[in-house]
Amino acid sequence: MTTDLGAQDLTALLDSARQDYSELAGRGLKLDLTRGKPAPDQLDLSNELLTLPGEGVLKAADGTDTRNYGGLNGLPELRAIFAELLQVPVAQLLASGNSSLELMHDAFVQALLSPLPGAQSRWVDQGPIKFLAPVPGYDRHFSICERFGIEMIPVPMTETGPDMEVVTRLVAADASIKGIWAIPKYSNPTGVTYSDDTVRQLAEMPTAAPDFRIFWDNAYSVHHLTDERVEVADVLALATAAGHADRVFVFGSTSKITFAGAGVGFFGASEANVKWWLGNLSKRSIGPDKVNHLRHAAFLGSAEGVLAHMDKHRALIAPKFQATLRILSEQLDGTGLGTWTEPKGGYFITLEVPEGTASDIVARAAEIGVALTPAGAAHPLGQDPKDSIIRIAPTFPTLENLEAAVLALTTCVKLVGYEQRLKQQ
Amino acid sequence: MTTDLGAQDLTALLDSARQDYSELAGRGLKLDLTRGKPAPDQLDLSNELLTLPGEGVLKAADGTDTRNYGGLNGLPELRAIFAELLQVPVAQLLASGNSSLELMHDAFVQALLSPLPGAQSRWVDQGPIKFLAPVPGYDRHFSICERFGIEMIPVPMTETGPDMEVVTRLVAADASIKGIWAIPKYSNPTGVTYSDDTVRQLAEMPTAAPDFRIFWDNAYSVHHLTDERVEVADVLALATAAGHADRVFVFGSTSKITFAGAGVGFFGASEANVKWWLGNLSKRSIGPDKVNHLRHAAFLGSAEGVLAHMDKHRALIAPKFQATLRILSEQLDGTGLGTWTEPKGGYFITLEVPEGTASDIVARAAEIGVALTPAGAAHPLGQDPKDSIIRIAPTFPTLENLEAAVLALTTCVKLVGYEQRLKQQ
Repeated sequence: MTTDLGAQDLTALLDSARQDYSELAGRGLKLDLTRGKPAPDQLDLSNELLTLPGEGVLKAADGTDTRNYGGLNGLPELRAIFAELLQVPVAQLLASGNSSLELMHDAFVQALLSPLPGAQSRWVDQGPIKFLAPVPGYDRHFSICERFGIEMIPVPMTETGPDMEVVTRLVAADASIKGIWAIPKYSNPTGVTYSDDTVRQLAEMPTAAPDFRIFWDNAYSVHHLTDERVEVADVLALATAAGHADRVFVFGSTSKITFAGAGVGFFGASEANVKWWLGNLSKRSIGPDKVNHLRHAAFLGSAEGVLAHMDKHRALIAPKFQATLRILSEQLDGTGLGTWTEPKGGYFITLEVPEGTASDIVARAAEIGVALTPAGAAHPLGQDPKDSIIRIAPTFPTLENLEAAVLALTTCVKLVGYEQRLKQQ
Repeated sequence: MTTDLGAQDLTALLDSARQDYSELAGRGLKLDLTRGKPAPDQLDLSNELLTLPGEGVLKAADGTDTRNYGGLNGLPELRAIFAELLQVPVAQLLASGNSSLELMHDAFVQALLSPLPGAQSRWVDQGPIKFLAPVPGYDRHFSICERFGIEMIPVPMTETGPDMEVVTRLVAADASIKGIWAIPKYSNPTGVTYSDDTVRQLAEMPTAAPDFRIFWDNAYSVHHLTDERVEVADVLALATAAGHADRVFVFGSTSKITFAGAGVGFFGASEANVKWWLGNLSKRSIGPDKVNHLRHAAFLGSAEGVLAHMDKHRALIAPKFQATLRILSEQLDGTGLGTWTEPKGGYFITLEVPEGTASDIVARAAEIGVALTPAGAAHPLGQDPKDSIIRIAPTFPTLENLEAAVLALTTCVKLVGYEQRLKQQ
């Protein structure tokens, strides 16, 4: 550890970091580590979709003309594929438009404007309501709550999911807490997968609110980075067994399986929830884009087909994660300036830097042309109280650009870290 | 006119209708005139979409990779095509998912949950609000208001659009009236096109509500049935000129141009409205299905390309409208039992039958296997106070089935009409 270094040693390290930084500044970099976007070569894996469903192919397995109106539930054969992967009975899984974020947003809309199963009234009539926000978490989740004026209560993430001691205490005591965000597998941004015990507690815990919902965003259900296909417990089955069938809203999508902008989103839940959902949806839609469903069913084929396809993604992006981890290790091991996650799947690495330095690091990186997700983005309202979390999204850049960007990032970590340490002496 | 017939003549006519009816009942018909759906041969016109955008074709004109996230406004080249057809400046026209109904629903959602430009508060905080509903009108419009508990005030449709004397009086006096539904061209179900004077009044009229909106559902903008391509005045330009730029929400879609279930919806409005819309939308979506936009832009090519494509639709469906009108005329002329519209475009013919008979006619038709839109559907809450409006949707059945269905319908009109008249004697 270098934390015992004297002022002289620190000054030397800082000088070295400054030299590296000014050298990088001269290079005119333009690199981007901000968003969890697939790279073009990943999208290429699904280019068959550009000519599917194919000439004259227009009917679903049951004979439905996919081109016409109707079929609010989505194409049965596509739902069957993802029912298995998302752990929802096919009759209770709906296929919809091109985004699960839309479905999560609309779940709030419908709960705000129509009483949920189990609710005494719609949320908009219940006065201020709250949501639990495991942190670090996904900024777009938090933006939805913020947009509707829903107060978020941060809950620390642990190695096994949200701190369940905190969660169970809060939800038992406060009926205005209406739900919790959850990314159960390869979580954004920590990579954590919820333990069986965490899932069981979420499913079984008493809640003061009768209309409590777990927003189970299974965004990375098949997004493995290692040989281990990590599994997560079946929350819907556990909740149902515990008498809380209506507690769970399951979300998923093909955004990071096929095309990020032209995939299919899924919503799954209990029978009562699905009936409620369809009742509201029927006022909004005459049916989703079933041709795109047909296209996806033809391309992916089966749940096993999805997993085989995800192996191709892994072959492209695992080296990017490895390169990122290697550079972090080469540059920061032993400095005491950073620790980071080593995810087994998903799209992110979380870098934790000394308290009070994350914003400055992101700003310094921006000055030399390296865009990072704003520090704080992983926290409600963009406010990280420790200012110590930086999310790295390694997938989109080329390997070469990624390596340059991560190296620049570690240079900024050292620059800001040593500056801070010198000031503190 | 047969209204002067004596009891004996009436009885003979009724007997004849009864005989026809029981003969039809024996045929085991299974015919459907309910929904304004394109027929399979119409959908075939766009089958190129089943293999578009084509192998390796993935970039927008500006180089954007359509497969990835982003591009909340929709594909610029597709917006340019429809900007012309929907009379909205391209910068203010957004391309979205597969349905304009969704956009209309979501316009209510956003106005309920976020203050509109010009609004003092969001609609959900304004107490009971109302909407004007021109009748006969479109049932799915009315269902959206009903779903959100918004009271609808029926306004009679005339030959030139909604009765503007009623409209202007109501909106000037009542600040709780927040908007009006409008299908300006080839209206559902009457086929009426708003006169220039109607459009001008809608654009210019004083409204007590500062956040009044015209929901301008230009669903049939290019859906001509005759050589005359009927035009409607540019409501957005007129409203802007009158100092009411924010008054108009324009909606449109390709649902009845390409694939009914797999097309593209459009939203257009003033700059301030679009900014408000995108601000809310950015919390919901990372962008629409741009690959489908690319597919559509490649297929349709230009505004002129859309019009040429619509000529092909016309060639398929104009004969169905003509056959319907011919049978109505052959069977009902001179009976005094019905009058009907002769639309120059759109998807519907409205049949007006004697007061108090529409529901019974629809029920009798159902009994012999002919499905009609429920009587009353063209009115708020499904309640037609005169019980006299029947909507005929001629496009979906084959010509043969259509002719059988319309003949059966006219038999039911005679059966019920003569029964009523005999009772009234």
